[in-house]
Amino acid sequence: MKEQWLFNAVDLAGTFAFAISGATAARRSNLDLFGILAIAFITACGGGIVRDLCIGAIPPAGLADWRYLFTAVVAALLTMVAYRWVERLTYPVRLFDAMGLGLFAVYGAHKALAFGHNAEVAILLGMVTAIGGGLARDVLLARVSIVLQKEIYASAAFAGAALCVIGERLGWPQIWAMWLPIVVCFGLRFVSLHLHWNLPRFGRERPGD
Amino acid sequence: MKEQWLFNAVDLAGTFAFAISGATAARRSNLDLFGILAIAFITACGGGIVRDLCIGAIPPAGLADWRYLFTAVVAALLTMVAYRWVERLTYPVRLFDAMGLGLFAVYGAHKALAFGHNAEVAILLGMVTAIGGGLARDVLLARVSIVLQKEIYASAAFAGAALCVIGERLGWPQIWAMWLPIVVCFGLRFVSLHLHWNLPRFGRERPGD
Amino acid sequence: MKEQWLFNAVDLAGTFAFAISGATAARRSNLDLFGILAIAFITACGGGIVRDLCIGAIPPAGLADWRYLFTAVVAALLTMVAYRWVERLTYPVRLFDAMGLGLFAVYGAHKALAFGHNAEVAILLGMVTAIGGGLARDVLLARVSIVLQKEIYASAAFAGAALCVIGERLGWPQIWAMWLPIVVCFGLRFVSLHLHWNLPRFGRERPGD
Repeated sequence: MKEQWLFNAVDLAGTFAFAISGATAARRSNLDLFGILAIAFITACGGGIVRDLCIGAIPPAGLADWRYLFTAVVAALLTMVAYRWVERLTYPVRLFDAMGLGLFAVYGAHKALAFGHNAEVAILLGMVTAIGGGLARDVLLARVSIVLQKEIYASAAFAGAALCVIGERLGWPQIWAMWLPIVVCFGLRFVSLHLHWNLPRFGRERPGD
Repeated sequence: MKEQWLFNAVDLAGTFAFAISGATAARRSNLDLFGILAIAFITACGGGIVRDLCIGAIPPAGLADWRYLFTAVVAALLTMVAYRWVERLTYPVRLFDAMGLGLFAVYGAHKALAFGHNAEVAILLGMVTAIGGGLARDVLLARVSIVLQKEIYASAAFAGAALCVIGERLGWPQIWAMWLPIVVCFGLRFVSLHLHWNLPRFGRERPGD
Repeated sequence: MKEQWLFNAVDLAGTFAFAISGATAARRSNLDLFGILAIAFITACGGGIVRDLCIGAIPPAGLADWRYLFTAVVAALLTMVAYRWVERLTYPVRLFDAMGLGLFAVYGAHKALAFGHNAEVAILLGMVTAIGGGLARDVLLARVSIVLQKEIYASAAFAGAALCVIGERLGWPQIWAMWLPIVVCFGLRFVSLHLHWNLPRFGRERPGD
């Protein structure tokens, strides 16, 4: 890809945003220095590590490529020492998070296809790449993940991963097969965030629930 | 196996029952559309995916075979749109769940042996196949799994997996080595459910615990 | 290694201590016979199993080597039938736990290097080997892990794993590259336990938190 540098920049920006969200949640749960570092790293890299285990990419890139660990550690340290400043970053962090969601979903699906797996594996693992870290963060913090409860988040990842698989199967030029789904996922996430869209629920909603 | 069609039918019936149990629990926890789909799929396929990672079967069948995903999605959709009807299915769902338990335990042990692993790996991964999805469901719903707390469930899976390994090692005809352990596990689970058998506990039982 | 027998003895003593900590926590959570066995085994072997999946060591040693399962089962049974006696073992169990921490961290890092992975993978997976089982125990018991909240535990594992990688890269004699980091990790853990050292936290500490 000629746009490799752009791709890498968005990848690390997404990693940074995911790590900030992990570190912030860990700080709120009153974890210590190590706990914050660990949750930041797992939120940023956990989904990709599970994807790599499932497609046979050993060792997982999240463990072997120092740039991910470095980015997550910087995000965690910032959250510890400059929390007021990070709090003011809410808007850019949400922006990066939505970009990271799109990029992770599409890159995860792309990597699964590149390892020779079928469309279903690619779509499912694209979603795992995008939302697995957030699920792991909430499991470690002993709470039901917001990802499973409301907002258009996992479904935006699904749209991105599915569109990537369709594009690659139809032989779209790579720049289209990669960037169009990223933009669609990002746009879906971002618009839904502004308009407070949610997926339907089916449980009886009683007051106090 | 000549009985492959019967085996497949029981496999998918078990997947359906496991997915119903996941979707029902997710609905009760007030998750949204995606959350219910995700928990149904993970409950049905999570154990088998972990087994496949541990024996080196890449990609895991639960991710690559569309019939599992399709069955889990149908079960989840039914739980969403026809909950009253699903609630009346309690008895057949328990029946299928007990059948799925036996089949998953035995198939998991069988697959581990077929990949050349030893008896211990086969028995442990037979149990993982049968109960791993239920554990993952409860972890994601942030609660201690009932599987670890009471009833004859994991121990029935153990009996099925162990009997399968014994049968294959003693060279029983395949129909016996597969179906006898399935029936034993199913029977143990079903009888214990009717007679309210539990394994012993050892904690101090105080009122209010 | 000439000291293989000593290494194996410390390995199994660490497994025993980790399993005791798992079984004790499971018993306090009022789990049944199977729940206690499962939590004891996962606490003792969970970290090593994840490490083996990440480095491509299939099947994971924790599943395939009967000595680990046997040690964990003995520890769990002792916790069930001789709890008063196990409670009096608090001091030796903490001692073994600290030894196990050092040994697991160093052995995990060593095994990752032996499988041809880089220093980052080795250090991260050394830590996973040492603390992964404890994290899994707390996830299954639906609580935030103490490992993420306070005490010098994961950071001692980090010191051990990092020192092991440095030693092997600098070509120290194997006895030094293995035992010095184990002793450093053990010492750090043990001294911090006696002096009540903690890592800093950054959340607002309000009364009642």
